[in-house]
Amino acid sequence: MSQEQSSSGAVTARVVIVGAGFGGLATAKALAGSEVAVTLIDQHNYHLFVPLLYQVATAALSPADIAEPIRHILSGAPNVNVVMGRVTGIDQGARQVLLADGSGIAYDRLVIATGSTSTYFGHDAWAPHAASLKSLEEARTIRTRVLQAFERAERTQDPAERARLMTIVVVGGGPTGVEMAGSIAELAHHALARDFRHIDPTTARVILVEAGPRLLTAFPEALAAYALGSLERLGVSVMTGQAVQDIDAEGVTLAGRVVPAATVIWGAGVRASPAAGWLGVTPDRNGRIPVEPDLSVTGCPDVFALGDTALIRDAAGEPLPGLAQVAQQQGSHLGRALREALTQGKPLPSFTFQNRGNAAIVGRHAAIFDFGRGRRLKGFPAWLLWAAVHVVLLVDFAQRTRVSLQWLWRYLTYRRGARLITAPPAR
Amino acid sequence: MSQEQSSSGAVTARVVIVGAGFGGLATAKALAGSEVAVTLIDQHNYHLFVPLLYQVATAALSPADIAEPIRHILSGAPNVNVVMGRVTGIDQGARQVLLADGSGIAYDRLVIATGSTSTYFGHDAWAPHAASLKSLEEARTIRTRVLQAFERAERTQDPAERARLMTIVVVGGGPTGVEMAGSIAELAHHALARDFRHIDPTTARVILVEAGPRLLTAFPEALAAYALGSLERLGVSVMTGQAVQDIDAEGVTLAGRVVPAATVIWGAGVRASPAAGWLGVTPDRNGRIPVEPDLSVTGCPDVFALGDTALIRDAAGEPLPGLAQVAQQQGSHLGRALREALTQGKPLPSFTFQNRGNAAIVGRHAAIFDFGRGRRLKGFPAWLLWAAVHVVLLVDFAQRTRVSLQWLWRYLTYRRGARLITAPPAR
Repeated sequence: MSQEQSSSGAVTARVVIVGAGFGGLATAKALAGSEVAVTLIDQHNYHLFVPLLYQVATAALSPADIAEPIRHILSGAPNVNVVMGRVTGIDQGARQVLLADGSGIAYDRLVIATGSTSTYFGHDAWAPHAASLKSLEEARTIRTRVLQAFERAERTQDPAERARLMTIVVVGGGPTGVEMAGSIAELAHHALARDFRHIDPTTARVILVEAGPRLLTAFPEALAAYALGSLERLGVSVMTGQAVQDIDAEGVTLAGRVVPAATVIWGAGVRASPAAGWLGVTPDRNGRIPVEPDLSVTGCPDVFALGDTALIRDAAGEPLPGLAQVAQQQGSHLGRALREALTQGKPLPSFTFQNRGNAAIVGRHAAIFDFGRGRRLKGFPAWLLWAAVHVVLLVDFAQRTRVSLQWLWRYLTYRRGARLITAPPAR
Repeated sequence: MSQEQSSSGAVTARVVIVGAGFGGLATAKALAGSEVAVTLIDQHNYHLFVPLLYQVATAALSPADIAEPIRHILSGAPNVNVVMGRVTGIDQGARQVLLADGSGIAYDRLVIATGSTSTYFGHDAWAPHAASLKSLEEARTIRTRVLQAFERAERTQDPAERARLMTIVVVGGGPTGVEMAGSIAELAHHALARDFRHIDPTTARVILVEAGPRLLTAFPEALAAYALGSLERLGVSVMTGQAVQDIDAEGVTLAGRVVPAATVIWGAGVRASPAAGWLGVTPDRNGRIPVEPDLSVTGCPDVFALGDTALIRDAAGEPLPGLAQVAQQQGSHLGRALREALTQGKPLPSFTFQNRGNAAIVGRHAAIFDFGRGRRLKGFPAWLLWAAVHVVLLVDFAQRTRVSLQWLWRYLTYRRGARLITAPPAR
């Protein structure tokens, strides 16, 4: 504790943040300009605006529209050092974060904000056939597979193969699955409608499969029912109560029957990052690290965890959901708390989540918002609010202008500008 | 000749175009809406605006800003069929274009517009260390290497390695090399200037190497001298009369001495596509197919070649240069000529090139234009003209708006929005 107690400026407390998602970035921003020496580590050089990743996967936006260089976001904060590197472990005895290049970064306080990854519930063999939506690379893979399947359908003489190529199955009825299914239906039924000569993209089948009894279980039933109706109007076939039994190169097996599909998208399972293993703490069954009300890791008072990788419960005892707004609020809270603790010796306050509304977008004019305690919004007003919120949340002004312009353009024309097949064909 | 002589509409003449670059696309557009059945084949699903590729490589634009789906460009032309596929050969006896998937596409007239590739003058071992600038994938590779080198420089403790990481060598003093060198210097010395804590990007070395006695030999000496001065003001070290002897993972060997450089960009050699081999004709030493004044391949009256892959001479006996405007004019000419020949039986007229001005851009406010016959433009007016021409030439309206906006934004702020490290690290 010696380092941060020196207020002479000779020795500065060191805060290391692992992960530059919504939580880690908010922590760094709250510490920007303070006397704390901050190091922010991420395996990528950019902060990714994950809630719009499905728009990259469906050719509506370009990767650079939703990703901003971390260094650039923090260029005005001389006390924040950005490191692009992959963390392999933590040496709590030596208080060091270990990187894949063999180097170590010393900390006085450590913040774990490493997010979550997709899980195939033990069926890792499904992964090559069912891309998930967690990274730019995966978004580009999905975009390539969907567009390439239409290219092949245009060329094939075999009606069964053509039908398989023009079938897209989205697994998982949460917000990711709903957004993907709606957006792919719009891509096929509008943006691509006039571009082929031998196939009719408006006849493409988009199937949304959910194992549970209904879509969007995190939302009230009335909103979920509205989303279901909107998806069906877009031409999406929604199949609830259908557990996926197998996924391979041919398609998806449901109830013992193979549904032939060239493109399968996985939006079903999310699991916390493996950071609990770095700390030697016992995670919950989703891999999350249990934290105290001040976000410190139970049993490790100098280490903090937040966002998708942390397990913290609300007043009702329910775990906080894995949402950008949860991570962002936790990051801002923790950054301010560490700043005051390390420079003024204040105690760490408890974190309280303020629900600013949980949203899902189904398609043009159709979105749902749940603000809790019975306050809801749906349809065109919800869609407008969703669009406004997301434009404002995008980090950079230039991106804001660009994304607004593209959305306006797409809205007026149904066109999509980023329809490039660029990733190497995966199969 | 039976098929196109039937004017009853029962049998339609088939024109197959290989390559959707400037030449092939212009041919297809000139044939759009006619009674000719057109098939346009390309290995990508997009038309690439190659003259702006260096801006993708230097993080100023996104891939989708300079690439447009071919189907979309031609969606209003029901007589044009777009095929995404790789051509492996031509069966002139059966009048078929052979594709990698084993299928064949029959033609009555064939247009070869397959462009050019980079050549390392027999040193193929240099290729992995010196990316060239011919495709979106290569542009992304260069962007990743440059940005990643700065990330590593920020982390290293070794001054020699840091200097190597912060050295970029561009090989070739033609327009591509000049544009790359200027744009990288601007990226390092302005866009990245404030983003690092341990290195100063403004001290990055950008070296432009040219084997000949001066830069831009296709331009008049006064314009080349102006470009040289502009590059030097941007901080580029220009080394003329220096042949590259070796390129490896360490750097570039010049005059027996290794210049340590983490990033090497190849802009030196261009060679025609291997299409001459498909036809069994003897190409010139750059691989180009000799064509007659009507652009038909010498000895193959039903096959035409244009753009970078064709050898045609102007009135002075000089081969026409490998420029977008040459290919585009040839494509428009040939498309019109084939339309009138196949639907009205008219003879094929000779092609004449109209020089609309040859341009190279050095950086902010600095460009050169040569309109031939002594008419020239340089500096800020040339830069404005260059920007205006390129915005207008971009195919799609949405792209035009987007690119204009980004250029305006970058102009005002020196910022670059597409600084993403996404390609897998090549070494």
